[in-house]
Amino acid sequence: MKDVAQKKIDKYERILDAAARVFAEKGFHRARISDVAKLAGVADGTVYLYFQNKDDLLIKTFEFIMDQVNSVLNRIYETEPSHEERIKKLINAHYELASRYPHAVELITFELRQSHKFMKEYENKKFKEYLRLIATIIKEGQDAGAFSKSLSPYVASRAIFGILNETMLQWIASKGKYQIEEISNTVMKIILDGIT
Amino acid sequence: MKDVAQKKIDKYERILDAAARVFAEKGFHRARISDVAKLAGVADGTVYLYFQNKDDLLIKTFEFIMDQVNSVLNRIYETEPSHEERIKKLINAHYELASRYPHAVELITFELRQSHKFMKEYENKKFKEYLRLIATIIKEGQDAGAFSKSLSPYVASRAIFGILNETMLQWIASKGKYQIEEISNTVMKIILDGIT
Repeated sequence: MKDVAQKKIDKYERILDAAARVFAEKGFHRARISDVAKLAGVADGTVYLYFQNKDDLLIKTFEFIMDQVNSVLNRIYETEPSHEERIKKLINAHYELASRYPHAVELITFELRQSHKFMKEYENKKFKEYLRLIATIIKEGQDAGAFSKSLSPYVASRAIFGILNETMLQWIASKGKYQIEEISNTVMKIILDGIT
Repeated sequence: MKDVAQKKIDKYERILDAAARVFAEKGFHRARISDVAKLAGVADGTVYLYFQNKDDLLIKTFEFIMDQVNSVLNRIYETEPSHEERIKKLINAHYELASRYPHAVELITFELRQSHKFMKEYENKKFKEYLRLIATIIKEGQDAGAFSKSLSPYVASRAIFGILNETMLQWIASKGKYQIEEISNTVMKIILDGIT
């Protein structure tokens, strides 16, 4: 039997998961807290126990998604010693996550930018953490002679994010016109040959 | 002396240029038609002569920017016979445009997505034209044996847009921390080695 603390975490995460789906489907401006509560199977008041308002819920949902992405990337970094394999696994992890959680990709790319608070006041630590980790993987690969020393690791990490983000959106928007393999093969080739 | 038709074009383009600056600075939701009219040096009513409402003005501004980008890319495609040089010039053209019109990059990336009309109803022909042109450059390079045949030209064109868009934003946001050369050298290396 689950204890009280575990039940609380379950409820909190259920709200965040529901919020990601509702924001992606209805759009940030049209989504209502009551839609999120309904999908999560909780009372409206419960959502306000955990979150101040809709902006706060959006930002916490984003952080929840990024924590999961960053923890997947961290695991790859810590368990995979080959520099090229790290990049391959990192690319595959993005498409795997996008196919399991397409609404999370849409939320990060579109809905987040609808929040004035997010765009103007929020210091995006989770995204910085994400870019820093990719830059570290590139830097270590450069030091080991696996990747080209002529690259700036920070510019390359941003370039890699740009490729992955755009092609994940292309894949989601194509609704089956593109196979994920067609996309990931081309992206794998560009990134790997591009940095080695 | 300019004739009447030319004066009309000047006024139209002056409004679009002012709109790009106002939307990028104030954000789509906060920007007012009267701010745009003031910066363009015309009466509020003049803006409404050409544009139905704020959404219409935003979309026309976007199309005006994309027409200029597409015409630069078309000129490169038509005048440069070398496949690799086309790609190099295409990359440089993006950073040149971004350094001259940083507000246009911000408008395309952020403000456009604030318009519900743009996101949900607008068929983005100009962006398709842009991607199609890059895909054509890649396809011709493949046929001539200059670029790798294993790439999907449409996925690669989207990947190239993703790299350029993200790194232009990185450069604009860095406010001088990154030199444009540091960024363009890394991007040039990734794209050229990535597709050849």
